[in-house]
Amino acid sequence: MKILFIGDIVGSPGRNAFAEYIPKLKRKYRPDLTIVNGENAAGGKGITEKIYRSLQQQGADVITLGNHTWDKREIFDFIDNADHFIRPANFPDECPGVGMTEWKQGSQSVVVISLQGRTFMQAIDCPFKKADELVAKAKKLSPYIFVDFHAEATSEKQAMGWYLDGRVSAVVGTHTHVPTADERVLPGGTAYLTDAGMTGPYDSILGVEKEAVINKFITSLPAKFEVATGREQINGALIQLNKKTGAAESIKRVQINEDRPFFD
Amino acid sequence: MKILFIGDIVGSPGRNAFAEYIPKLKRKYRPDLTIVNGENAAGGKGITEKIYRSLQQQGADVITLGNHTWDKREIFDFIDNADHFIRPANFPDECPGVGMTEWKQGSQSVVVISLQGRTFMQAIDCPFKKADELVAKAKKLSPYIFVDFHAEATSEKQAMGWYLDGRVSAVVGTHTHVPTADERVLPGGTAYLTDAGMTGPYDSILGVEKEAVINKFITSLPAKFEVATGREQINGALIQLNKKTGAAESIKRVQINEDRPFFD
Amino acid sequence: MKILFIGDIVGSPGRNAFAEYIPKLKRKYRPDLTIVNGENAAGGKGITEKIYRSLQQQGADVITLGNHTWDKREIFDFIDNADHFIRPANFPDECPGVGMTEWKQGSQSVVVISLQGRTFMQAIDCPFKKADELVAKAKKLSPYIFVDFHAEATSEKQAMGWYLDGRVSAVVGTHTHVPTADERVLPGGTAYLTDAGMTGPYDSILGVEKEAVINKFITSLPAKFEVATGREQINGALIQLNKKTGAAESIKRVQINEDRPFFD
Amino acid sequence: MKILFIGDIVGSPGRNAFAEYIPKLKRKYRPDLTIVNGENAAGGKGITEKIYRSLQQQGADVITLGNHTWDKREIFDFIDNADHFIRPANFPDECPGVGMTEWKQGSQSVVVISLQGRTFMQAIDCPFKKADELVAKAKKLSPYIFVDFHAEATSEKQAMGWYLDGRVSAVVGTHTHVPTADERVLPGGTAYLTDAGMTGPYDSILGVEKEAVINKFITSLPAKFEVATGREQINGALIQLNKKTGAAESIKRVQINEDRPFFD
Ligand SMILES: [Fe+2]
Ligand SMILES: [Fe+2]
Ligand SMILES: [Fe+2]
Ligand SMILES: [Fe+2]
Ligand SMILES: [Fe+2]
Ligand SMILES: [Fe+2]
Ligand SMILES: [Fe+2]
Ligand SMILES: [Fe+2]
Repeated sequence: MKILFIGDIVGSPGRNAFAEYIPKLKRKYRPDLTIVNGENAAGGKGITEKIYRSLQQQGADVITLGNHTWDKREIFDFIDNADHFIRPANFPDECPGVGMTEWKQGSQSVVVISLQGRTFMQAIDCPFKKADELVAKAKKLSPYIFVDFHAEATSEKQAMGWYLDGRVSAVVGTHTHVPTADERVLPGGTAYLTDAGMTGPYDSILGVEKEAVINKFITSLPAKFEVATGREQINGALIQLNKKTGAAESIKRVQINEDRPFFD
Repeated sequence: MKILFIGDIVGSPGRNAFAEYIPKLKRKYRPDLTIVNGENAAGGKGITEKIYRSLQQQGADVITLGNHTWDKREIFDFIDNADHFIRPANFPDECPGVGMTEWKQGSQSVVVISLQGRTFMQAIDCPFKKADELVAKAKKLSPYIFVDFHAEATSEKQAMGWYLDGRVSAVVGTHTHVPTADERVLPGGTAYLTDAGMTGPYDSILGVEKEAVINKFITSLPAKFEVATGREQINGALIQLNKKTGAAESIKRVQINEDRPFFD
Repeated sequence: MKILFIGDIVGSPGRNAFAEYIPKLKRKYRPDLTIVNGENAAGGKGITEKIYRSLQQQGADVITLGNHTWDKREIFDFIDNADHFIRPANFPDECPGVGMTEWKQGSQSVVVISLQGRTFMQAIDCPFKKADELVAKAKKLSPYIFVDFHAEATSEKQAMGWYLDGRVSAVVGTHTHVPTADERVLPGGTAYLTDAGMTGPYDSILGVEKEAVINKFITSLPAKFEVATGREQINGALIQLNKKTGAAESIKRVQINEDRPFFD
Repeated sequence: MKILFIGDIVGSPGRNAFAEYIPKLKRKYRPDLTIVNGENAAGGKGITEKIYRSLQQQGADVITLGNHTWDKREIFDFIDNADHFIRPANFPDECPGVGMTEWKQGSQSVVVISLQGRTFMQAIDCPFKKADELVAKAKKLSPYIFVDFHAEATSEKQAMGWYLDGRVSAVVGTHTHVPTADERVLPGGTAYLTDAGMTGPYDSILGVEKEAVINKFITSLPAKFEVATGREQINGALIQLNKKTGAAESIKRVQINEDRPFFD
């Protein structure tokens, strides 16, 4: 089982880069399953039904979300009918949508779980306890369990990796929009990467037009954050899982940008 | 001018790894200048005079610090007499120590600046304005200016990189203890890396024994954080600067661990 | 049913003030039940078994706690055997101790609940949902339910007051150590006060020696916070509940200090 | 010199209450100067030029602001031409507007200073150092100096009170929208109150419609916060200063609401 994960799609530059490179990446790596974080796909904030459908048509088998889940109000209209479209599972129970989905193809099945951290973020339910609960359910469905842990603090992310080591196939972080270089298979067999990075403008601050962000840091005045334009980048990870055990055999980063060009 | 930067040394595992590999790294890469972040060198929290001296004897030409600067009380006794030993420059003026140092050897000179972020961290002086002030001074001393930006948020770190692009030779981040994979030379000629990562225990959470950290996340009970033992890792970066302009020609990550063994 | 609540006892000045004035307050107001927040009773941080016993002997029928619950390590040895001694109920289930207690005397019974907020504080379980759960249980025991909501943000505290209005007898806040002047009986019959204030040094910053706190704000250097000495103050509230309904009839602040002397 | 201070006016309910009661309060207390915090006057967020003018016509001699200063974009068009209209002085220098104003009438003069805290708030310049700078200037203009310290944390507010004790006439806090009951004249002669509270809807959470706020705490879903309707309240303080020294002789809270009716 080979899984391709693509980090947060940011706005139209992210969607363009995804549309352009996903066929090439699929040809090159031949993943069985492609998972994409779409929390910033619509103008950097949230996602629309149209974009959700379009991402799936272009090759995203499962879409995960994060703290920007609710930014576009129409999400409330379609999230409960959207397949393979999950928001963090440890959002309070009152929230629409679900946080775990089983993807099936032929005799194959992978369970994908979305969780969100709490350090420097909103106070929601405990992601570690929610992980226990969902992993127990997932184990009954498939040996392959993939976790997108959407969190800010490196401590909380590494803690989740070690906490689930040996219990899931992979824990890949998102949210900081910067890819980390610490991909590894932990001793228990779980592939781990603190952050997959984002997919969007390369010359930007987390995808946002940089002058506005710098100005806000310096002046503390309110600023309008627009998705940047120009050169694009793709960040993600490729994970190979063992057919028998579901454990990870390898994880490698996938990065495409001006300084790391794509080769077939 | 070739600069080797080594990320936060964490406790005795970090010091051991540094002592073992720094001669090998110097033989391999032949840096003109080696800069080391030492804020966690003493038991994970702060630094002592003995360790400061020992790191310099082992090959750290300049030592930078961060939010853990004051953790060992003896720092107040030696910081004002320690050469090439800098704490974040944007700490309030009442703080002992300095935040910028000029390293000289023969006809060569490099100015090293330490700055600290404010997002999710202590409220100190504005790092962007302090950067303006110090870069103006540094420019008069040397074409080579290296900035260690000790910060939590990826947005603030990327903002500093772009803000100083074209004005300094390099902006390398520290503090999250996780190396990022976004090293690049920005269009203006500044080498940039969001975080260099740390040097210390490989099987740990940011250097700390992992069970204690996980337990704290789950129970919220107080926990004693001890530096982990076992396998070690080194993380840093190697930066090549142009002799005439001081601009960066290249930046590459330096990582040594079980999964990324050292080769001569 | 008349309840006297005394806000966070801070260190020996707080204990001294409590010992001196509690007999006078009892003579004056004749409360049926006296509840005291003791989270800062031992040197400003936590509480010991000796102090817990002493406070109860001096007239505290029920002792509540807060974010400082675990500051003194001996708490783990006695909390599970201590009567009428409660920590925030929405701490994770792994924590020792309980968050609700029923106090009985003759035919009378009052349920006291401790909850803690999350805004600007640790990420723990949802206090609103925990309130729902405990109030349902408490209703079966007594018509009188008193809630100490230990929280920082005024928004979260007022939200809890309105959320429980008509379902409990009183919601009194603690933690900021400053008494608020918004005591009232909400339309549903719940007595509400955003913060009861603290009991300890009058010339201090939240009970702490003021020079150290000011110095820390200005320099950002670490500081040793000692409980201040000198003049003392007592802050709390007196609540009258209706015998038949358990609803509040009145709430008034109780304040004793140099500017608000005690009168019999 | 008698100063009447009115806490944050929230939306049209706050403006209505102000318009109705300010003439009555002036008749009753005969203040020489009336200062009003207007940061929430326009729909709970920011202030418009029309409202600024209207508040001054109705009797606000000086208007102070806070973290909501920039919420209405038209502020940028009129703040630099608005008299006796100040935003926190420790906003970065790039911000329009000023943070100190001298009010004069006949031979009388009072300097009013606005400062904002940093704990649990935006990272701006140090309010303590800015206070030093401005108090030195103000001393040359008038013996009467009034400081509105807009801050969240009780520790930072008390620290400012003690820091300025003996150097200014009064330090009155705003921002939490809850009046505190700790008004006093500090030993050095400075009148102090942690928070003056707000002027607006009485049956609300900080002025906002309560169901929306409660719902957000429970679900963590985004919510539209509207200023509440219904009964109103006024909160503020009355401060008497010594003619010769400028020191405070007394400070008392001013509160008008259903439970604390106004008496002539
Ligand atoms: Fe994102
Ligand atoms: Fe995110
Ligand atoms: Fe560090
Ligand atoms: Fe650090
Ligand atoms: Fe307390
Ligand atoms: Fe507390
Ligand atoms: Fe306000
Ligand atoms: Fe405010």
